[in-house]
Amino acid sequence: MSVTAARGFEAAGIAAGIKESGGLDLALVVNTGPRLAAAGVFTSNRVKAAPVLWSQQVLTGGQVSAVVLNSGGANACTGPQGFKDTHATAERAAEVLGGHSAAEIAVASTGLIGVRLPMDKLLPGVAQAAAELSAHGGDRAALAIMTTDTVPKTAVVQGSGGWTVGGMAKGAGMLAPGLATMLVVLTTDADLEPAALDQALRAATRTTLDRIDSDGCMSTNDTVLLLASGASGRTPDAGEFAEAVRTVCDELGRQLIRDAEGASKDIRIDVVGAASEEDAVQVGRSIARNNLLKCAIHGEDPNWGRVLAAIGTTSAAFEPDRLNVAINGVWVCRQGSVGEDRALVDMRYREVVITADLAAGPAAATIRTNDLTADYVHENSAYSS
Amino acid sequence: MSVTAARGFEAAGIAAGIKESGGLDLALVVNTGPRLAAAGVFTSNRVKAAPVLWSQQVLTGGQVSAVVLNSGGANACTGPQGFKDTHATAERAAEVLGGHSAAEIAVASTGLIGVRLPMDKLLPGVAQAAAELSAHGGDRAALAIMTTDTVPKTAVVQGSGGWTVGGMAKGAGMLAPGLATMLVVLTTDADLEPAALDQALRAATRTTLDRIDSDGCMSTNDTVLLLASGASGRTPDAGEFAEAVRTVCDELGRQLIRDAEGASKDIRIDVVGAASEEDAVQVGRSIARNNLLKCAIHGEDPNWGRVLAAIGTTSAAFEPDRLNVAINGVWVCRQGSVGEDRALVDMRYREVVITADLAAGPAAATIRTNDLTADYVHENSAYSS
Repeated sequence: MSVTAARGFEAAGIAAGIKESGGLDLALVVNTGPRLAAAGVFTSNRVKAAPVLWSQQVLTGGQVSAVVLNSGGANACTGPQGFKDTHATAERAAEVLGGHSAAEIAVASTGLIGVRLPMDKLLPGVAQAAAELSAHGGDRAALAIMTTDTVPKTAVVQGSGGWTVGGMAKGAGMLAPGLATMLVVLTTDADLEPAALDQALRAATRTTLDRIDSDGCMSTNDTVLLLASGASGRTPDAGEFAEAVRTVCDELGRQLIRDAEGASKDIRIDVVGAASEEDAVQVGRSIARNNLLKCAIHGEDPNWGRVLAAIGTTSAAFEPDRLNVAINGVWVCRQGSVGEDRALVDMRYREVVITADLAAGPAAATIRTNDLTADYVHENSAYSS
Repeated sequence: MSVTAARGFEAAGIAAGIKESGGLDLALVVNTGPRLAAAGVFTSNRVKAAPVLWSQQVLTGGQVSAVVLNSGGANACTGPQGFKDTHATAERAAEVLGGHSAAEIAVASTGLIGVRLPMDKLLPGVAQAAAELSAHGGDRAALAIMTTDTVPKTAVVQGSGGWTVGGMAKGAGMLAPGLATMLVVLTTDADLEPAALDQALRAATRTTLDRIDSDGCMSTNDTVLLLASGASGRTPDAGEFAEAVRTVCDELGRQLIRDAEGASKDIRIDVVGAASEEDAVQVGRSIARNNLLKCAIHGEDPNWGRVLAAIGTTSAAFEPDRLNVAINGVWVCRQGSVGEDRALVDMRYREVVITADLAAGPAAATIRTNDLTADYVHENSAYSS
C-alpha cells in the first residue's frame, strides 16, 4: 500500500538503468489533489546533497505536487553541476506530468556520494515512471528506493472518520540522528494546511526517526516528506493526526533498524531517571554509538561496564555511584557497581533492551540502534569497489 | 629498556594469577631517588575506575615512590569495595618496599570493567614483584601490563648532557581521546620539580596520546604518569625536556594505534586550513570516528564522500563548497566536489594519510586512528565470554 494507501496519490517504481544491477531505481509519487499541501524535514549535516538543497527550497512554498526519488547515486558532493542535474530532474517531471511547476516538485537521491548521476538514463526514466503511474503503485515505489536494504519498508494507519496516513522508507547504513540515511515519503488524504502538516511531522520525527542511530554516521541526503491530498475531504483532530503520523514514523524507524546493514540484534535503549529529556537523549545516543558495547551485544555478552563507560563521556546530570543498568530486565549494575548476576541475562533473542537509570530526575527517552557485526564491516568495506 | 632506561628506577613484571591464562599480569615500578617528583594525567571519563580516583589523590602531592599496575581486571564500577581494594594494594606495596608511605604509591589497573580483582592473588603478587625488582626489569614490566595488546610498547629518548626519558604503554581497544584505554608510565633521571614535570607532560599528551582515537570509546582507567628520580643530577633545558617527553609520548601513541584491535591500516588524519586548532581537532576526531569511512579504508576504497559527510557533522568553520580532501596525496575532492581520479590513489600499504583542507584559516592538527575490521568485531564480541 505504502504511499498509495491514502487517496489522491499515484506512484510508480521503475528500472531506469541507474543501478548497474538493472534493479528498480527510480520512484515517482504524485499528489493528484485536490490539495497539494506538504511539509519536510532534512538532514542536519552541513554537507547537503544537491536534492536536499533543492527540496528545501521547494518546501518553503508548502506545496508539493510530486516527488522524484532515485537510488543508485546520492548526487552529493557533486558541485554546481549536481544541483543543475537535480533541477533538470524536476523540470523533466513537470514537463511529463503536465500542468505542474518544477518549483513544486521535490527530488530525493540515495547511493554513493561524490559521483554524478547518469542523467542520460535518469531523465528518460522520469518519463517512463510517469507513464506507469498508478493508484496501486506504492509498493513498487518502495522497492525502487532501496539501496543496501534487503526489504522494502512501508506502513499505514487508518484514522477515524475515513482518512489515512501511509508511507515508505529506505535506509540501512549511515543511520544516525538528525536524521539517518533515510528517504521517507508519507502521504495522507486528510485535508490539512502546510503548517499543520509541518507541526505533526516535526513532532513525530523528533521522537522516532530522529532517535534511531544505527552506526553514528550522519547522512548528506536524509529527506522526510509528508504530502496531503485532501482527497478524503476530512480534517482530522490535530492530536489524532499527530499520533497517526508518529505511529507511521515509529513503525518505519523500527523497520529501518531491523534491516540495518549486517545487524543481528535490535537494541532499544531506554534512558530513565534523567534530569531532562535532552540529558536522556544525549546519554542514549552515547550508548548507541559505543562500538565496544555494540560488539558485546553481538556476542550476547551483557557487558554493562561498557554502558557505564559510555554514560561517563556525556555532560548529563548524574553521579557515577548512583547509576543503575538493566539488560533485558536484569539489573546487572546497581549504584554504579555490580548488581544481579549477569548470568541471569538471556540474550538469545534478536530484541535487546538496555535500561539506563541516571537516578537524577523524572525525564526519559528511547534510542534505537543495532549491534556491530563483521557483516557490517564486510558490506561497508566493499560498498563502492 | 622501557621504564628502567633512566637511572634511579627498578621494575618487575610477574604472573600473579590474576589472568586466567597464567600470563604476566602485575608490574611494579619503583623510583629509587634521590628525588620522587611526579606528574600525571587521567581519563576525562566521568565514570572513573577506583585506581584512577586513588592515583589522582596521590598525584596531588607531586610525589610518587612506586606504581603498581595490573592487567586482568580494570577495578572499574566496583563501588566502595573496589576503592578499598586499590587502597589495600598501595598499603601492601608500601609495606613490602619498606620506608614508603601508601600515599606516595600510585595504582593502575586494566581489563574487564565491573569485576572485583582477586585480591588473594594480587596482594601476594605485589610482594613477589618487590622481590624481583631489578634495574633491568623494564621490559618485563611492559609485558605484564598487556591485555589484548599483541606486542609490548616501549620508547626511550636520550637527552643531551646525560639524562634520559623512557616509558612503557599498553592499550589496544577503547582507545579514544581524553585519553585512550592506556596505561603509560614514563620515567626520567632528570632533576626536575613536580610543576616542571606536569607542564611537560600536559603539553606532550595534548598533541600525542590525547589525539589518537582508535574506536571512539573513552576508557574509565586511562592513566599516564611521569616519574623523575633526579639520578642523573642534571636539570635539562625546559624546551629540550618537553620535546623529549613529547617524542616518547608520540612514539608510544603510534605503537598503540599500530597494535589496535583488529587493525589492518594506520590512518593519519591531517586537518589543515582550519580557523582554529580546536576546529581542526574537532574535524579530525569526527573523521576518525566515522565507522563507514573506517570500513572503506579497510577495503582500500578512497571513499572521500564519507570524509565530507563526517566533516559536515561538526561545528567547525568551513564552507561545504570549498572543502578539499586528499587521500595518500591525491586530491580526490576539490571545492567540495569530484577532484582527481580516485583510481590514482594507492592504498596497498598499511599507512594511510587523509588530508582534509577546510580552507578557512591557518590552523592544523593531526589525529591518528585505524580502520574498522571484522577482526575488531570478533575480538570485542568475545572479550568477556
